[in-house]
Amino acid sequence: MAANTYLTGIKPTGDFHLGNYVGAIKPALAASHEYDTYYFIADYHALNTIKDAEELRHSIRSGAATWLACGLDPERTIVYQQSHVPETFELTTVLSALTPKGLMNRAHAYKAARDRNVAAGVTDLDAGINMGLFNYPILMAADILVMEGTHVPVGRDQTQHIEYTADIAGYFNHRFGDAYSFPIPKGVIDDSDASILPGVDGRKMSKSYDNHIPLFLPENKLKKAIRRIPTDSTPVEEPKDPDGSVPFQLLQHFAADDTVADVRKRLQAGGMGWGELKNELFEAVNAEIGPKRERYEELMANPEEIDAILRKGSERARVRARATLDRVRTAIGAA
Amino acid sequence: MAANTYLTGIKPTGDFHLGNYVGAIKPALAASHEYDTYYFIADYHALNTIKDAEELRHSIRSGAATWLACGLDPERTIVYQQSHVPETFELTTVLSALTPKGLMNRAHAYKAARDRNVAAGVTDLDAGINMGLFNYPILMAADILVMEGTHVPVGRDQTQHIEYTADIAGYFNHRFGDAYSFPIPKGVIDDSDASILPGVDGRKMSKSYDNHIPLFLPENKLKKAIRRIPTDSTPVEEPKDPDGSVPFQLLQHFAADDTVADVRKRLQAGGMGWGELKNELFEAVNAEIGPKRERYEELMANPEEIDAILRKGSERARVRARATLDRVRTAIGAA
Repeated sequence: MAANTYLTGIKPTGDFHLGNYVGAIKPALAASHEYDTYYFIADYHALNTIKDAEELRHSIRSGAATWLACGLDPERTIVYQQSHVPETFELTTVLSALTPKGLMNRAHAYKAARDRNVAAGVTDLDAGINMGLFNYPILMAADILVMEGTHVPVGRDQTQHIEYTADIAGYFNHRFGDAYSFPIPKGVIDDSDASILPGVDGRKMSKSYDNHIPLFLPENKLKKAIRRIPTDSTPVEEPKDPDGSVPFQLLQHFAADDTVADVRKRLQAGGMGWGELKNELFEAVNAEIGPKRERYEELMANPEEIDAILRKGSERARVRARATLDRVRTAIGAA
Repeated sequence: MAANTYLTGIKPTGDFHLGNYVGAIKPALAASHEYDTYYFIADYHALNTIKDAEELRHSIRSGAATWLACGLDPERTIVYQQSHVPETFELTTVLSALTPKGLMNRAHAYKAARDRNVAAGVTDLDAGINMGLFNYPILMAADILVMEGTHVPVGRDQTQHIEYTADIAGYFNHRFGDAYSFPIPKGVIDDSDASILPGVDGRKMSKSYDNHIPLFLPENKLKKAIRRIPTDSTPVEEPKDPDGSVPFQLLQHFAADDTVADVRKRLQAGGMGWGELKNELFEAVNAEIGPKRERYEELMANPEEIDAILRKGSERARVRARATLDRVRTAIGAA
């Protein structure tokens, strides 16, 4: 039996925030001790929105550098660039021949784009929609299936992605299963408290809520961002409810357990103000993120180091991709 | 300036008829003396309809063997298998990100499939339509552009194909033209008399009219098929109008000029019957096709010879495809 393969795409962007670190990066690093892990920079997905070479190149490196700086070990995890595994795109072509158009018509991302046209009063509902967006679910299925991925982390609101991949794998297996079958991948939904970081307004941290704190803010800006987190006007000396305060919720994700317990007691006893809590939070976040930020800056100053890691990882990824494609090609009769 | 590159896809099928020979194969062989020629077996297009490994494998070999037997010289022409040039599928992915969905909505092949659903009273107009059909124009554009094709033979009713490729190349050039531009390919329309063979009913020979004579019929069946071509009941001794008779029109495509002139005179003078004309036609067709049929049978008995030719041609084709892709990847920022 093949080992379990845990696979995830990394959006090429420099825009990671603390919520991504807690909700995506840390769980993925933990998974690398339990599974065969394949993490890729999804540059051809990004091409749907980024149409500038310098921006794409920078985003690829920045995305990779962020994960590497956070502790992604390119020996333990196969970390690669999507566009450097061309077998993915050949598989996309094969899977297209088996995927009903109706399935794509119902994809959430496509329907959301049409709804935006409706809301904007645009008559042609497909206006501004490119075929990269429309084909997105097939490319994503190929990303996963070419590596025989079995476990894919998804948000609770993104389960359609993995359902579509399972459907598309099923079309292939139904037709050609006598010769070769893809493993049907499962979505791994992690909505434990440990993986959900609140934003500065108390809702889940998210760029779309504009309540986020960027991951690699310079120290002084990080301090300012934490100071600006809204708190109530309870005076310093009064007892406070730790769990009702955003800075304390954040502290639980970054400080050691005994620090958290100590701060909790001091807040409940009175005498500890929000300002002091925020100082504790800054120290904890900065202690964890500071060295990573340094490593990130170091990597970004040496892009050839990032490129070499991605190149090497892509070669390793292609070994598996080629093996899958060989089986697929034989099964369909093209080899 | 790059040389002119003449490119065409070959449907993988064993179903060629005399009309294909006259209308597609012969002109393509002639073009190989004038252009750099790239001819490929379009196996991933065929995957939209052929979902059986043995059938696809046989069709690929039969299609290649037909063209090789007809005189396609794999030294002069780069003859390859579409699926063996994976750069094509990577380019498809890149072009998808630039192609508006609206363009695909208006593609003839897709609209025809919807019209068939309308005619059949099917409510879901996309029923039975797969994404391979919907994406077909993008894959075709990639087939052409990855080789920097400049000249593509198309039927008069298929000019949309090449217009779409020009449009898609234009989207890329508009965005990334400072770094790299695809040459805009032109359709080569050949509707000269020399390239249109009548079928047994006098209309253009076509499988959809069911008026065709298969290319590699065994000799006795070829003779029978020619004998069955309808003619009027003018008695042997009466003068006849050669140009009003299908066998004579066919003869003009296969017999030497002096034979044609001689037969014309004898028909006009009276004394030559349709049966004798059909004998002349059979001799002419068989003299031209016979050795090709033998070579076809020989190739089909040695599939490893066909496979080796396609493998070698595909390696040559990939040299150009890789060069194109390198430029594309640099232009978009993925390299």
